[in-house]
Amino acid sequence: MPQIETILTPALFYLHSRGLIEKQVVVIDILRATTTMVVAYENGAKNVIPVESLEDAMKHVAPGVVLAGERNGVKVEEFDLGNSPQEFTRDVVEGKTIVISTTNGTKAIQACEGAKYRYISSFRNITAMVNQLIHNNCDVLLFCAGWKDKFNLEDTVFAGAIADKLAENGFEINDDATIMARSLWLLAKPDLAGFLANASHVKRFKTLHIESDLDVCLKFDQYSGVVKL
Amino acid sequence: MPQIETILTPALFYLHSRGLIEKQVVVIDILRATTTMVVAYENGAKNVIPVESLEDAMKHVAPGVVLAGERNGVKVEEFDLGNSPQEFTRDVVEGKTIVISTTNGTKAIQACEGAKYRYISSFRNITAMVNQLIHNNCDVLLFCAGWKDKFNLEDTVFAGAIADKLAENGFEINDDATIMARSLWLLAKPDLAGFLANASHVKRFKTLHIESDLDVCLKFDQYSGVVKL
Repeated sequence: MPQIETILTPALFYLHSRGLIEKQVVVIDILRATTTMVVAYENGAKNVIPVESLEDAMKHVAPGVVLAGERNGVKVEEFDLGNSPQEFTRDVVEGKTIVISTTNGTKAIQACEGAKYRYISSFRNITAMVNQLIHNNCDVLLFCAGWKDKFNLEDTVFAGAIADKLAENGFEINDDATIMARSLWLLAKPDLAGFLANASHVKRFKTLHIESDLDVCLKFDQYSGVVKL
Repeated sequence: MPQIETILTPALFYLHSRGLIEKQVVVIDILRATTTMVVAYENGAKNVIPVESLEDAMKHVAPGVVLAGERNGVKVEEFDLGNSPQEFTRDVVEGKTIVISTTNGTKAIQACEGAKYRYISSFRNITAMVNQLIHNNCDVLLFCAGWKDKFNLEDTVFAGAIADKLAENGFEINDDATIMARSLWLLAKPDLAGFLANASHVKRFKTLHIESDLDVCLKFDQYSGVVKL
């Protein structure tokens, strides 16, 4: 059966890069990059292009293109949108190409460029994502974007949620990081927001007064599609 | 109050190196380096010197010196002892200087050389270790040695056990890694061996036929001293 491994931060990616071309990777940046990208598709965006630098984003300026990005959780001034999923409403993104640069998510997305399949996902399309991974039926890398190369709780819990569902479908958990992530998910599941309340990122959210984003980021299955890169 | 951070693998140490000189570090390599070192002291070793390379170990050859070391979990042929705590009996180590080189533990020990205090610890002296950290009353870094820079379960659970006791004594948990480690410990506590049974390292132990070491490594409070480097 296919195996599951979890990358806890981009700094540990190099330990998992072997055989990447045979694997399907899910990039996870729950607060907020991958949630925001899923919301963009929910609301009818034609395409979402993650880029690394602000300069790369600027190169895409054209009619029908919306630029989005943050640095350290704050919107880039010259851009149309920041990284709050609540900005990505239907009237703003429908039919548009969204070019997005974020602190951590984009870094992870680019690191795993050589994979067989690359997805981004969030709680908002978790069931669709799991079904797709099962359908593809090959080894899975769950790639947590973390925060500036540090481990974070919300990405790991999401990786654990995916691993749990895959394991129920016969996928094999292949490393300690995935065992840990699954344990964490099972602990968090009954009260996800409560469990994450002490997470460093959630505290950062409170400092930045973007708490209402949290509700959006922790909603399950609002979108029935997957986001393939 | 002093704060607690956890380093999940040596590959993430660089994220925590700032202000090291003000911090007390506990290096954790439960299976088996730091357990073995504690056992050596339990059984009357005069001194335990961790070194990085086998060549460095050879430089210490002298009367009253015992060389110990493993690579990939297997004893180094030319050495007196491997890394199994069960070899470090009183008749072998009492009054001796033990020079030990191990795959992961030594790497972590050397990385944090600039810290205010450096300790190694294991379940066998956890209470003494916690009391010392409380007594020192400064910021704590729990440094998991991992396995070849990968996250591992048993070191993280031990870090969580220490963090739990420190938090009960007013220390502040300062990062997501420590929140996770503490959660994991609270999950594992009722049946530690059972919880770790699926850990990659424990499986490796079974392959190497050194399962009986596990019992030794998971015993609590056999030694009332601390091991300071």
